[in-house]
Formats: sequence, structure tokens, C-alpha cells
Amino acid sequence: MNPKRALVISSSTAMQRTALSHREGGRRIGVVPTMGALHRGHLALISRARELADVVVTTIFVNPLQFGESEDLLRYPRNLEKDVELASDAGTDLVFAPSNEEVYPAGFSTYVEVEGVTGPLEGKSRPGHFRGVTTVVAKLFQITQPHFAVFGQKDAQQVVVVKKMLRDLEMPVEIVVVPTVREPDGLALSSRNVHLTAQQRSEAPILYRALRLGEQILQDGERNCDAVRGSMRDLIASRSSGSIDYVSIADGEELEESVDARPGHPLLLSLAVRFGTTRLIDNVTVVP
Amino acid sequence: MNPKRALVISSSTAMQRTALSHREGGRRIGVVPTMGALHRGHLALISRARELADVVVTTIFVNPLQFGESEDLLRYPRNLEKDVELASDAGTDLVFAPSNEEVYPAGFSTYVEVEGVTGPLEGKSRPGHFRGVTTVVAKLFQITQPHFAVFGQKDAQQVVVVKKMLRDLEMPVEIVVVPTVREPDGLALSSRNVHLTAQQRSEAPILYRALRLGEQILQDGERNCDAVRGSMRDLIASRSSGSIDYVSIADGEELEESVDARPGHPLLLSLAVRFGTTRLIDNVTVVP
Repeated sequence: MNPKRALVISSSTAMQRTALSHREGGRRIGVVPTMGALHRGHLALISRARELADVVVTTIFVNPLQFGESEDLLRYPRNLEKDVELASDAGTDLVFAPSNEEVYPAGFSTYVEVEGVTGPLEGKSRPGHFRGVTTVVAKLFQITQPHFAVFGQKDAQQVVVVKKMLRDLEMPVEIVVVPTVREPDGLALSSRNVHLTAQQRSEAPILYRALRLGEQILQDGERNCDAVRGSMRDLIASRSSGSIDYVSIADGEELEESVDARPGHPLLLSLAVRFGTTRLIDNVTVVP
Repeated sequence: MNPKRALVISSSTAMQRTALSHREGGRRIGVVPTMGALHRGHLALISRARELADVVVTTIFVNPLQFGESEDLLRYPRNLEKDVELASDAGTDLVFAPSNEEVYPAGFSTYVEVEGVTGPLEGKSRPGHFRGVTTVVAKLFQITQPHFAVFGQKDAQQVVVVKKMLRDLEMPVEIVVVPTVREPDGLALSSRNVHLTAQQRSEAPILYRALRLGEQILQDGERNCDAVRGSMRDLIASRSSGSIDYVSIADGEELEESVDARPGHPLLLSLAVRFGTTRLIDNVTVVP
């Protein structure tokens, strides 16, 4: 297969005009919002969109609004040419790749904010992060006018937050979630993995191992979530140099920390661990 | 003319489905967002929408989110039956009249906020007001999917704020502004006028008289905006029992208070005055 190269659009107005005309033509639009640095995880999202849409739009925008001041915005990997090639090969028709000034022109001052589910986990570790996410996703949806959007389960809280925004504001966009793509040793694919040293890379699969351990303990019948968190923390501390940001066992919808696991009630096990200056996250859903 | 009664829809899902199907059919949708208690000012908005749209949607929703705790939410006039009749006669095809629970179901937690232009004037006097306005307007636009929306110049700052939201988030909705409709003595029509006592009603035209005075002074060549504000305040204080909330001469776009009037640069003259428990606002635009 040698699909044609996607058309790259950098103007919001041109993108919106194109999208609206596809809508008027009765074509189903699927959008895959990314920050570029595409890996097989992103390509799985695009492939899924390709199966469901008439027109697949991949957006590539490293959104400054979702990075904290001390975060890794400047070193976030960027390579538009390669991304366009990968996105095209995976089935993208249109790449929307705006500049910062296109998305946030001088005087920009409108924000979309979800309260509640943005408080814990990533929201606690990264103040303002989700305000940046919801603002840019709301704007990207206005520009690309999708019938559905595809997100990765890797960013589990992001999925919860975006779904909440859509439901609260009645945005007519369906969310399609694709399972996390992993390396053979279990490490979740992430654009940030490139920053890991060889030593850190060898330790990084501890995130997924801890999640699987937590899952196993729960499925073996442990009901005390604190005990499960403790075992997960112990594993990470004893088998890696990673610094734990959080280890969470929470209600899958409200994201509130759970005290007791209840059979049949889905739990989101998630964690964030730093290796040097690189912060990794991962999660699994468990129904005890 | 005896137009047929508009169809009344209270479900967001049903309204959105109807709107999306009109869009797919290539029909142009115009929406007139109101809080009901329709008067000739609203009917002018609906008539304008009728001229421009294939499908006219009037929304009727007294939005609790835009009222402060000490404000007049509970006594805001409500009469859906009469409103539907008036809206129908003015050319409305569909009335969207949701309940509070339909717009803000339990757990609702997403807000759209415009910073900057929401700070002064009404924003200063009514903290949280515009957050309520932008949130509900964003949501109503998702539900009614308009090509354009019609607002009254009476709420001048609201027009500026909504336009800013649409521009910042690239919402593909055009804003049509209709001039303020007035009583023969100059009082701007407002659903709140019914609360005025006979004495207050006789004094209330002072708002428009003060605006016209300010305009006259500016057109006579006065450049010092403070002097103009002073004359307007003096008129209100000397000729009415109204309590001045603010008298403003501001840049028409950024809404920052002006120091010197500059020929050719539009100014927004606006004011808010309380008569007892009733707060009235009005404005005119002046190009010196």
C-alpha cells in the first residue's frame, strides 16, 4: 500500500471551510488530535479513524497551553515532515498543523475549563494542564468539525475530561478510545520515551509491571485499595530508580480515590513516575 | 398574517438532532437566544433572523448561571405560553425551551470563560455573570447549531464578549446585532422594566437622556472623557432618584475606559442605574 500524501493545512479558516464542505457533502469526519512526534500508538488511532470515517483529519499541534512553566514544552520532539509521512501512510487525508500564533493570536483570552475530574492525578501534578487540553480540543473541534474523535487510552484522564466537556456542553462529537500500544516489554509508547537514557529505558517497564501487579492483587480478592497501592509503590521503589509522582486506584468515571474495591465496579489504576527529567504515565482498567 | 405556532422542544438531544438534520438539508439556521419575557426588542431580533434564515430557532431559558446570588433570578418574569405565541407571530419556527436540569444536569462542571473584556462594566458589577453567559451561549450553539445568531445592541458588552468567544474558539457562528428598541420617551425595552414603580418609570428615561447628553458633548468637540462622564452623572443625580452603578466611556472593542476622545475612533457610552431593586442598563456608540 502506498497511499497518497495527506494535504497539510495550517490556516484555521481554510481547515474549517474544508471541514464544513465535507459535512455538507454528507461525509463523516474523524479527527485524531496529536502533538506530533507520531509513534505506533498514534498510528493505531489514525488506523481506527480510517476504518470509521470518510475523511480522516490528523491535527498536529504542540499546545503550549497544556504545558506548565517548568515542563518540557521546549524539548518536546517536533518533526512535521516525518509526521505527515507517517500520518499519510496510516490513512490520514488531511493534516491540520497550525502555528502557535494561528491557535493563540495576540489577545486570545477564552478558556474552556472542566472542574471536578480535572482535580486529581495529572491535574494535581500539572496545574492548568487540563484547562489547556480542553481549550485546545474545543477549538480544534470547532475548526475540524468532526463527527468523532479518536483518543488513546494511554491518557486515561484526558479521555474522561474530554468526554465530560462534550457531555456538559452537548458538543455533538463521539469519542472513540483505542487501547494503549506497548513495547514488547510492556512500556507504553510515548513521544517522551526518546528522552530516556539506556538505563532509564531498561527500568521504565516497571510502570506497567506495577499496574499488572495491582491488577493481579485485586483479582486475587484484595479489597483494601491502600494495600494494593502499597504493593505497587514497593515494587517501583525496590526495582527502579524512578521517583513516584502518584500511584492511584480510583473510580473510573469520577476519578475519586477508592477505599474498597467492589466486585463489578471498574477501577482505573494509574501512575506517574519520573526518571530523571522524564515523566512517564500509564494506566489499566480493572473490574474486580 | 397568521403564522403557525412554533414547535416547542425541551430536549437538548431532540433539538440538536433537528438542527443537524436541517444543516444536512442545506438549510440556514438562525438562533435568537433569549430569557423569555419577550418584548418588542426580542421580536425585532426574531424578525431579523426571519429575514436571514431558513429556520429560525428562538431559545427561551432563564439561565441561573448568569445571575449573582443577590440578583433577581427568582423574580425574573416567566410566561412560556405567551412567549411561544409572540415568538411564533414574529416568525419563529422552533422554540427551544429547556428546563434547568436539562441544561445543567447534576454534576455539570464545564465552563467557558472569556477573560479581559469581561472585567469592566457589567463584569465588575456582576461577578460571574459573563461566565454564565458564555457557558450557556456556547452550549446553546452546540445544541441549536446555528449559522448565525442575533443579539440586541442593548446588551453591548454581551455582544463584545460573545464575539470574542466565537473568534477565540473559532466557532463558525456569525453574530448579527440589532439596534436597541425604545419606548417613545427613550427608555430601552427590557424585561425588567415591569418591576419599575410609576415614579421610577417616569424617571427611567434619564439613562437614555444622559447617553444623548454625553454624545452631544462629544460631538460638540469635548475631548476630555472625564468631563463628559461628569456631566452625564450630574444629569442623572440632579434629575432622578436613580443610584448610579457606573457611567462609562470606553473603547468600543477592548472596553477600556477612554481618557481622551479621538476623532474617528468609536466609543461605547454605557451606564447602569438602579431604581430601588431594579437595575437598568443602556448604551450608545459614538464616533466623535
